[in-house]
Amino acid sequence: MAGTDSTQGALTGGPAIILVRPQLGENIGMAARAMLNCGLTELRLVAPRDGWPNEKALSAASGADAVVENARLYDTTAAAIADLAHVYATTARPRGMYKPVFSPREAVAAMVPGIAGGEATGVLFGAERSGLDNADVTLAQAIIEVPLNPAYRSLNLSQAVLLLGYEWFQARPDLAAPAGPLEAEPPAPQADLQGLYAHLEEELDRAGFFHPPEKRPGMVRNLRNMFARAGLTAQEVRTLRGVVVALTRGRRGAGGRGGED
Amino acid sequence: MAGTDSTQGALTGGPAIILVRPQLGENIGMAARAMLNCGLTELRLVAPRDGWPNEKALSAASGADAVVENARLYDTTAAAIADLAHVYATTARPRGMYKPVFSPREAVAAMVPGIAGGEATGVLFGAERSGLDNADVTLAQAIIEVPLNPAYRSLNLSQAVLLLGYEWFQARPDLAAPAGPLEAEPPAPQADLQGLYAHLEEELDRAGFFHPPEKRPGMVRNLRNMFARAGLTAQEVRTLRGVVVALTRGRRGAGGRGGED
Repeated sequence: MAGTDSTQGALTGGPAIILVRPQLGENIGMAARAMLNCGLTELRLVAPRDGWPNEKALSAASGADAVVENARLYDTTAAAIADLAHVYATTARPRGMYKPVFSPREAVAAMVPGIAGGEATGVLFGAERSGLDNADVTLAQAIIEVPLNPAYRSLNLSQAVLLLGYEWFQARPDLAAPAGPLEAEPPAPQADLQGLYAHLEEELDRAGFFHPPEKRPGMVRNLRNMFARAGLTAQEVRTLRGVVVALTRGRRGAGGRGGED
Repeated sequence: MAGTDSTQGALTGGPAIILVRPQLGENIGMAARAMLNCGLTELRLVAPRDGWPNEKALSAASGADAVVENARLYDTTAAAIADLAHVYATTARPRGMYKPVFSPREAVAAMVPGIAGGEATGVLFGAERSGLDNADVTLAQAIIEVPLNPAYRSLNLSQAVLLLGYEWFQARPDLAAPAGPLEAEPPAPQADLQGLYAHLEEELDRAGFFHPPEKRPGMVRNLRNMFARAGLTAQEVRTLRGVVVALTRGRRGAGGRGGED
C-alpha cells in the first residue's frame, strides 16, 4: 500500500500511546508506524523488556523514526501517566472491574472533546502475550475493548494501536471533510446525455433493434437508465458517441443502406 | 493482546478478500489472521509471487490456518472475481478514474445490504509495494481509500485488510435487519461483464476505433470504467450485447468485411 504525500507536514495532537512492558523492539517500531499512519506522534514506553534505545525498534519504524526517537521512557505505569488528565486501558478480556467499557470508536468520541480542550490523554497497551496487569487497568478511568470475532480475538500490538489510531483519525476534530463520493470530474450536462440517447436510438432504429415496435418505449427507457446510472462525464459521453460512430461506420461505408432488415 | 474464546464457532459471511499478486507468504498469513479477527474467512489469491501452497503463509497464520488452507488460487484478477456481483478495489493513491471513492466505513455500509441479500462481494488488495494495477482497479465498481495521515500513508497488506475487516465486523450486526432499499434485480456476475467488454472491444478493434494503438489500453480502461460503474444487471448486459450486435449488423451483412475503416 504505497502512497505518501511528504509535502504535508506531520500531524500532531491526539492521545499519547503508552506501551507497558513491551517485549519486542520490532513491535515497538511497528506500533510507531501505525501511530504515524493515524497522525499520532506521542509514544511513551514503560520498562521495555529489551532496554532502550532499541535498534530493532528503529529499523522496524521505517519512516516513523521520529516517533521512536522522541519516545519517552518510564519505570512505572503510574509515572508514565502522571501528567495525563484522561487514561484509557485497552484489554482483550473482561476484567470484572466496575469501569466503563468502550469500543475504540466510543472511546475516541469520549476523548475528542477533552483533547480539543487541551486535556492530555493517553491510552495504555499491555505486553504482547499477557496484556495489561490488573494494577495497570486500575489506573485507567475506562476500558477499551475492540469488538472482534469472539472465536479469534488475538491481535498483535501494532494492530491494536492501529485500530485505536484509525478511529482517532476518523474522528479528529480538525479532519478536513473527505473529498466527496466521486473524484474530481463533474457529470455531463443533461443536454449531452440527451444527444447521446438520440444518436444511439437513431442508429438502433436503423438497425431494426427495437422490435416489436410496441416494445420500443420500454427498451429505450431501459437503455437510458443504464447510462443515466453511470453518472457519465462530458468526455465519456463523447467517447460513447465515438463508439456508436465506430460500430456503425462499416455499415455506412458499405453503401449507406440505412434501415436494412 | 491475548484473549480468544474458542468455544464460539467461526463466523462466516462477508466479502471475499482477494490478494492480487501478493509477494511474501508471511503477509498472506498475517492477512488471514486479520481476516479471522474480523469474522472473514473467504481468501482468494491471484498469482502469488512465491507459488502456492506456501509454508510461510501457513506458519504466519497461527490459528487462522483454515483461512489459508481454504484459499482459492487464480491466474488472473478477472478469473478471481468472475462469480462476484460487487467488486471494490483498495488503493492508496488517486487513480484519476471516474469511480466512486469510499472510506472503508462507507464501503462496508454500501456492501452490507447486498451481502445480506446473498450477493457475492469481494475486495481487491494489491501487492505490497506497488498496489493494484490500473487494469485491476478498472474491474472494480468503486474504490476504497483509507483516510490516513497524508504525510505517512503507507500501510502493510495485513493492516489494510484489518481496517476493512474491522469496519465489516462493526457493521455486521445489521445483517440481521431486513435489507433496506435493495434494487429488485441483482447485478450481473463479473463474468458477464467481461464477456461484454471482450465483445465490444473486439468490434471496436475491427472498426479501427482504438487509434493510435498506444492509446488503446487507456481507452479500454475508460470504457470498462463506465460500464463497471453502472452496476449493470445480467439482463442489461444482454441488452448491451444486443446493441453491439445491432450496430455492427449492417457491416457484416454488407460482406463481412471485418477490419475496414
